[in-house]
Amino acid sequence: MQFGFFDDKNREYVITRPDTPAPWINYLGASDYCAIISNNAGGYSFSQSPKSGRILRFRFNNIPEDRPGRYIYIRDRKDGDYWSVSWQPVAKPLREFKTECRHGLGYTKISSFYRGIGAQVTYFVPEKKRCEVWALEIENKSDKRRELDIFSYAEFCLWNSELDMKDYQYILYTAKTCFRGGLIDYRLQFGDGSLKKAFFGSTGKTEGFDSVRESFVGQYRSEKNPVAVEKGYCLSSSQEGGNPCGSLQVRMTLEPGESKRVNFVMGEVNSPGDGSRAIRYFKKKNSVEKELEKISKLWSKKLSAMQCSTGIKAFDTMFNIWNQYQCHTTFSWSRSASYIEAGGRDGLGYRDSLQDILGVVHSIPERVRARLVELLKAQTSKGCAFHHIQPLTMKTGGGSFPDRGAIYSDDHLWLGIAVGAYVKETGDRKFLFQNIPYIDKGAASVYSHLLKSVDFSLNNLGPRGLCLGLAADWNDCINLYGKGQSVWSSMLLVRSLDEIIQLAGYAGKKADAMKLKKLKRKISDRINRVAWDGKWYLRAYVDSGRKVGSSSCREGKIFVNPQSWAVMSGVAEPGKARLCLASVSRYLNTKFGIRLLAPAYAKYDREIGSITSFPKGLKENAGIFCHANPWVVIAECIMKNPERAFKYCYNILPGAYNSDSDKRKAEPYVYSQFTTGKENGNFGQTKNPWLTGTAAWCFIASAAYILGVRPDFDGLVVDPCIPLKMKKVNVKRYFRGALYDIHVERRKGLTSSRTLLNGSELKGIKIPLQKKGSKNKVFVFLPS
Amino acid sequence: MQFGFFDDKNREYVITRPDTPAPWINYLGASDYCAIISNNAGGYSFSQSPKSGRILRFRFNNIPEDRPGRYIYIRDRKDGDYWSVSWQPVAKPLREFKTECRHGLGYTKISSFYRGIGAQVTYFVPEKKRCEVWALEIENKSDKRRELDIFSYAEFCLWNSELDMKDYQYILYTAKTCFRGGLIDYRLQFGDGSLKKAFFGSTGKTEGFDSVRESFVGQYRSEKNPVAVEKGYCLSSSQEGGNPCGSLQVRMTLEPGESKRVNFVMGEVNSPGDGSRAIRYFKKKNSVEKELEKISKLWSKKLSAMQCSTGIKAFDTMFNIWNQYQCHTTFSWSRSASYIEAGGRDGLGYRDSLQDILGVVHSIPERVRARLVELLKAQTSKGCAFHHIQPLTMKTGGGSFPDRGAIYSDDHLWLGIAVGAYVKETGDRKFLFQNIPYIDKGAASVYSHLLKSVDFSLNNLGPRGLCLGLAADWNDCINLYGKGQSVWSSMLLVRSLDEIIQLAGYAGKKADAMKLKKLKRKISDRINRVAWDGKWYLRAYVDSGRKVGSSSCREGKIFVNPQSWAVMSGVAEPGKARLCLASVSRYLNTKFGIRLLAPAYAKYDREIGSITSFPKGLKENAGIFCHANPWVVIAECIMKNPERAFKYCYNILPGAYNSDSDKRKAEPYVYSQFTTGKENGNFGQTKNPWLTGTAAWCFIASAAYILGVRPDFDGLVVDPCIPLKMKKVNVKRYFRGALYDIHVERRKGLTSSRTLLNGSELKGIKIPLQKKGSKNKVFVFLPS
Repeated sequence: MQFGFFDDKNREYVITRPDTPAPWINYLGASDYCAIISNNAGGYSFSQSPKSGRILRFRFNNIPEDRPGRYIYIRDRKDGDYWSVSWQPVAKPLREFKTECRHGLGYTKISSFYRGIGAQVTYFVPEKKRCEVWALEIENKSDKRRELDIFSYAEFCLWNSELDMKDYQYILYTAKTCFRGGLIDYRLQFGDGSLKKAFFGSTGKTEGFDSVRESFVGQYRSEKNPVAVEKGYCLSSSQEGGNPCGSLQVRMTLEPGESKRVNFVMGEVNSPGDGSRAIRYFKKKNSVEKELEKISKLWSKKLSAMQCSTGIKAFDTMFNIWNQYQCHTTFSWSRSASYIEAGGRDGLGYRDSLQDILGVVHSIPERVRARLVELLKAQTSKGCAFHHIQPLTMKTGGGSFPDRGAIYSDDHLWLGIAVGAYVKETGDRKFLFQNIPYIDKGAASVYSHLLKSVDFSLNNLGPRGLCLGLAADWNDCINLYGKGQSVWSSMLLVRSLDEIIQLAGYAGKKADAMKLKKLKRKISDRINRVAWDGKWYLRAYVDSGRKVGSSSCREGKIFVNPQSWAVMSGVAEPGKARLCLASVSRYLNTKFGIRLLAPAYAKYDREIGSITSFPKGLKENAGIFCHANPWVVIAECIMKNPERAFKYCYNILPGAYNSDSDKRKAEPYVYSQFTTGKENGNFGQTKNPWLTGTAAWCFIASAAYILGVRPDFDGLVVDPCIPLKMKKVNVKRYFRGALYDIHVERRKGLTSSRTLLNGSELKGIKIPLQKKGSKNKVFVFLPS
Repeated sequence: MQFGFFDDKNREYVITRPDTPAPWINYLGASDYCAIISNNAGGYSFSQSPKSGRILRFRFNNIPEDRPGRYIYIRDRKDGDYWSVSWQPVAKPLREFKTECRHGLGYTKISSFYRGIGAQVTYFVPEKKRCEVWALEIENKSDKRRELDIFSYAEFCLWNSELDMKDYQYILYTAKTCFRGGLIDYRLQFGDGSLKKAFFGSTGKTEGFDSVRESFVGQYRSEKNPVAVEKGYCLSSSQEGGNPCGSLQVRMTLEPGESKRVNFVMGEVNSPGDGSRAIRYFKKKNSVEKELEKISKLWSKKLSAMQCSTGIKAFDTMFNIWNQYQCHTTFSWSRSASYIEAGGRDGLGYRDSLQDILGVVHSIPERVRARLVELLKAQTSKGCAFHHIQPLTMKTGGGSFPDRGAIYSDDHLWLGIAVGAYVKETGDRKFLFQNIPYIDKGAASVYSHLLKSVDFSLNNLGPRGLCLGLAADWNDCINLYGKGQSVWSSMLLVRSLDEIIQLAGYAGKKADAMKLKKLKRKISDRINRVAWDGKWYLRAYVDSGRKVGSSSCREGKIFVNPQSWAVMSGVAEPGKARLCLASVSRYLNTKFGIRLLAPAYAKYDREIGSITSFPKGLKENAGIFCHANPWVVIAECIMKNPERAFKYCYNILPGAYNSDSDKRKAEPYVYSQFTTGKENGNFGQTKNPWLTGTAAWCFIASAAYILGVRPDFDGLVVDPCIPLKMKKVNVKRYFRGALYDIHVERRKGLTSSRTLLNGSELKGIKIPLQKKGSKNKVFVFLPS
C-alpha cells in the first residue's frame, strides 16, 4: 500500500494519506535551529542542542502517537465546529477531510480542505535565524461568508530535555510565561542562574492567547479537543511554574473566494527584541516567499555538486535528492535528535561523524574541514579518541582522558579515512600541516594526529597480533573485553593505513609512506594467516580464544563486515575476495538486504557481548543492518560485479519500497538503521530511520563505486560499475571548481572501456584536474 | 469544591467525582512490590526498584493526563457500546456514568454503574508477593440478559525506566511477549545478559489476548478508544521487540440480577511457575477476601501503636489514618516513585530516610533498625555520608568516598537524631554497641559512628566557627560554596549533639558526655554571638562574608528554619526564643502555612545558590515549604504556646482543605512538599504530594508535642500542649509492649498540670516503664 509519491520536480515527497504507518518526518533548519516535523504536524524544536536547548516538547514512543506538535486549529464561529489544518490531532473523518503533506528540502507544507475552507500552512526555519515560521493561508472556497477563529498551539519544553522528562519536582517550578509586547514571552532560569528565553508571536491581530498548557487544553482533555478551541476563546493565561505553551488566537472573516494569510513565528531570544524583530520582518510582503527562496537556493547549491540520471527512477530520486538530503541531516545532527533519538545523546558520535563527513564533503567541504578540526581536538595524545563529544562545551588540552572501558577499537581509525576524503576532494594539502591540540595535552599537525591513530592501535594488539576489541568496534554490541580481538578492526586499520600512506605521499613524507606500507603488508598477512576460515573471514577471537564467525560456530557462523572489508582494505587477494563475497551472497543475503550475521544468536554469550542479548533478527543480531550493506556494494564494485552490486544497492533502496509502505512502516524517502531480519515475525519492517551512517555510505557506494566517480589528489577517477539495466548514465559533478559532465554508455565491440575528456581519449580512468570554472564533457564507453 | 469525603470507619477516602483537579493516587504494596494507582486507575508498578524494576509504564506530566493505567473495559456485544470501569480512559459522560473510588490502606476500589451494569474492581498487592491483583465483580442490574466482553489492559514498561524513556534505538528491540500456558509471558534481556520476566493472567477463560500495544490500541488511537475493544476482539498479538502490553479478553453472559467475578493478576516472575501459581491461588474461593483481610490486619497493627481522639475531626482523621499511612509510604519508597518523582532517583535519600524513620519508629521499630544499619553503612570513616544510596547494589568497605562537591553539611548529623529516636522507642541499648562497617574502610560501633558524624562537622567549620554549608544543608537550594557557612547546620549540630550526649549517658560513656556538653555549649554560644540579628537568627554567611537572612538584606531578610531550630536545639535562651518566634508569626506566616523566607528573591545570587533562581513563591523561594512548618509547631510547643502551635498545625493540615480541593489541587488526604506562596498567582495550590519529610515531622509535631507523648530511655513523657478547643483528648499509645491509655482534660482551679498513672499521682510528666502486656490509665489534668 502506498501513502504518497515522489515529486522530483519540486524535490518533494507528497503524502496523500495522512494515516501513515508511522509518523513520517522532515528536518527544518540546517545549522543552529532545528525543527523536526511529521506529516501530521507533530514534532519538536531545539536551538543548538537537543539536550539543553529544547524549545518545543515531544512525547516519544507515545500513545496517542506523534504528539504534540505545531498545531493550527480552525473554528467556525457560526456552529462551533473545529478542525486542525493537519489531519491530527483533531482527526476529522477522512471522507470529509482532505489533506496533503509535502515534505520538501528544508520546509513542510500541509494543506487541507474541510467544509468549504482550504488551508495551507508552510513550516520552515529561515536561514541563519533561530526561529521557525508557520505561514498560514486560508481560503474560503464556499459560497458563504465565513467567520473563523484560528488558534495556533505548541507546547514548550522546559529547555533541558532530561530534566523535562524526569525531574518534575524541580523543573515544573522554573518556567515563566506571559504576554508582553504583543508576544508570548517564555523564560526559564536554571539553578546555576542561566536564563533561557523564547517567544511566540503572530503577524495577525492577536484576539487572545494562552501560555499555560492546562488552560488551553483543559482537564482530562488532549490536543484533540482543547477546551479553548471548543469554547472559541483563549483564557489569557500566564503563569510562573507549570507547563508553558503558546497559543495565539486570530480572528478572520472571509468572503466567498477570499483568502487571507497570517504567519506565526516562534524562536529563541538571544538578544532583546529578537521576537518583535522577527514578527516585524514576517509582516512584510513576500518575506515568506523570500525566505523560502533562500532555502531553495541553499539546497540547490548543496545538491548540485553531484547529480545523476541513470534511467532508474528510484535510484535517481534517492541519489539526487533524498539520500543527499539525509546525508546533510546526519552531518548536522549526528545521532542526537529524531523520533527515535530522544536527545539524551547530545553532540557528535566520533565514528558516526567521521563517516557522516563522507556523504557531504563534495558539497560543503568548508564545513567538513571545521568538523574535522572539532573531531581531531577530541583525539588524545595517545591516539585514541572520545567516543562521543559535545563541541559546544568540550575543553581541549584539559587533561581529560577517556576511561579504559570507554575506548573503542575503531573511533580513531576513521580519522585517516575522513581526512583522506577531505584532502582528495579539496586538494587542501596545507590542512595536513595545521596544528591542532589533543584533548588531554599537547598539539600536533593533522598528519601527526593520523600517525598517532595508527600508534594507538599498534599499542593495543592482542595475542594473535590483531587489534584488541576494547569496548567495541563499529559493532557496538560486540564487546570483546580482555584479550578479545577484532578481525574487523584490524581490517579497518589496514584500510586506514592505506589512506594515511597516500596522505603521507601527498605530504611529501616518503620515508613514512615506505614504513607504513611495510606495516600494512605485515598486518594484512597476519589477518590472512589467523583470520581466514576457509570460505570467509572470521569476525573475532574472544578473550578465552574462541572464534567468532567461523563455520565451526553453532551460531554467528558468518558475519558480513569482515568480508566486505577484506575487499575494501585489500587484505583479501582476488581468490579469497571472490570466495568470501560468494559466501555473503549465499548465507547472508535476503530480499530486503544483507544480514549482519547468520545464524542469529539464541543464547547470551558474555564473551561476545550484548549482540547475543537481542531477539533474533533484530538490530545487530542477524538484523539487516543497513549501514553494512553499502560496504558489500563497494566490495562487489571493486571486484567488478556490477549486477550483484546494484542488486544489493536496490534491495535496501527506500524509494524502491514506496508501494509497500504499509509493511515497511518507515519513511520511503530515507534510509533506516536496520530492517528486521527473517527470524522475526516482522521481517521487512524497517526501523530507526534518518540518523544512520547508512546514508553516507549508500551515497559513497552509489557515487564513487556504482557511478564510479571518485576524487583523487590529482584528478577525478571515473570508473563506473553499472548494471546492464542502466543503458545510459549521465553524471554532473563539480570537483575543485570545475564541472564534469560525464556520459556513460555501452558500446558494442569494445573489449575494455574508453574514456574521453572534452573529445580527447585518456589513457587511464582518471580525469586530470581542469581549470576552475571550466565545463568539461567526459565520455566513458563500456564494453556491452 | 469537594470531590470526596473521609470515611474514617473504613479508613478510606471516597472520591465521588472522578474529575479531580489532579490525579489522586494511592500506594499498594508495602515491601517489595509497589503499585501506584489513581482514582481513574492510572498509574504504574515496579518490583523493588522504580528505576530498574519498572513493570508497568507511566507517562508523567502527560497530555492526556494520568495515562496509562490498569484499565478494564466492558463491551456490550449487542450494540458494541463500551466503557471502562474507571471513568477514564473511555470517559463516558458523567450524567450517564456513575462512579466512585475508595482509596483504602493498601487497596483501591473503583466502582461504576452504566446502562444497567454495575462493576467494581479492587486493586491490591498481596502481602509478601511480587504481584498485583485486579479483582473484578460485575453485576447485571438491568432486567435483560447481557452478553459482555471484558478486556483488561496494561502497558508494560521496558524495566529500566531511564532507557524506557530515552533510548528507543536500543530498548525497543529487547522485549519478547507471547501467550504461553494460559498467561501473557513477557521477558526482556539486557545487554549484560540479565533477564527480567513478568506475567499477566486471569482466573476466567481467556477468550483472546494481545501482548503488542499497537495491536490492541490501534494506530492514531489511544486508551480512550482501543481498536480491539471497539471491534470486540483481541488479535492474539505476540512480538519480539516493540512495546509490550497485556490484554486479556474474557466473555461473560449475565442474567438479570446475576453477578460474576474474575481476577486479573500481574506480576514479576522470579521462579518458574510464579505466574501460574498465582493464578491457581486466586482461582480459589475467598482468596481475594483472605488477602484483603491480611492487608487490613497489617495496617490495623501498624496504626494501632498510636491513636488519638481530640474532638477535632480533621486532626484525628489525619493523625490516626492518613498521616501515619503517608509516613509508612515515605519510609518505604523514600523520594523515588510518585506521580512527580519519576523514578530516576532510586533508593534512599540519606537525610530523607533518617527523618522518615521518625514517623514510623513507634510502629515498626525492627524495620527501622534494619534501615538504620543500611544508612550507617553508607557513612564514611570521616563521618560524612553519601547523600543518596541504593542499598540493593551498595558496596560497603569498597573504598568509595563521595566527591567533595557531593557532601552536604547536614546528612550525617541526622544520624544522632534518628538513632536517638530508635533507642528511646525501644530501649535497645545493645544497638549502640553493634559493629557496622563504614562505606570506605573500617568498621566501628554505632555509637562511634555518631561521634564521627560530629567530628566531620567540627573538621569542616568556616571562619566564624560555624558549619561550612558545603553542597547544601537541609535546603538543597542554598549552595554556600567556599567559606560559606550555614547557621542552620550549626543548630542541627547542636541538636544532634544534644541527642548524642543523651545516648552517651545511656551507653555509660560519662566522660564523652561531659566533653560533648562543653562542646555543645561552646557552639551554642558562638551561634548566639555571630548569628543573632536583633529580632531573629541569620540563615547563613556566604563565601564573601555577606549575611543571608538579616534585616539588613533587601531580599531574604528572614528565614524560618534558624528560628524554629534555635528553639528546638536549645540555642536560644527564652528571650531570644520568644522574639524570633514572634518574628516568624509576623513576617512569615500566611493562612496556608509559614513561608520559608521573606521577601522572596527576585534576582539570581550565585553566592546564595539556586534558591534565588526560582520564581517568587515557588519551592524554597518563599514558598510555603511544608516540611519546615512542623518545626515551628514543635518550637511553639517547647515555648508553651499551644494556640499558635495548633494554628500552624491546622494551617497545613490537608484534611482541613477538603472542601477547597479545586483550589488546592492535590489529594486532601496527604501532605505535599510545598504550597504556593503569596507572590505567585496560584497562592494556595499545593504541590508534590506524598513523598515528603513533611509527613514524618507533622506526625512528630502532633504526637510528641501537641499531644505531647514522647518516648524517653526510661519512660514515656506525657506533656500535652493542646489548644483550648480540644476539650478532652484521648491517646492510646503502645510503648515497649505496654499500652498507655491517656486522657487529657482541663480542670478549673489548677495552677499547674497533674499526671496520674493508674490512679496514682506522679511527680513529673514522665510515666515510668510499665510491664509488657500491661494496660495503663494515665490522666493528665491541665489548668484551664
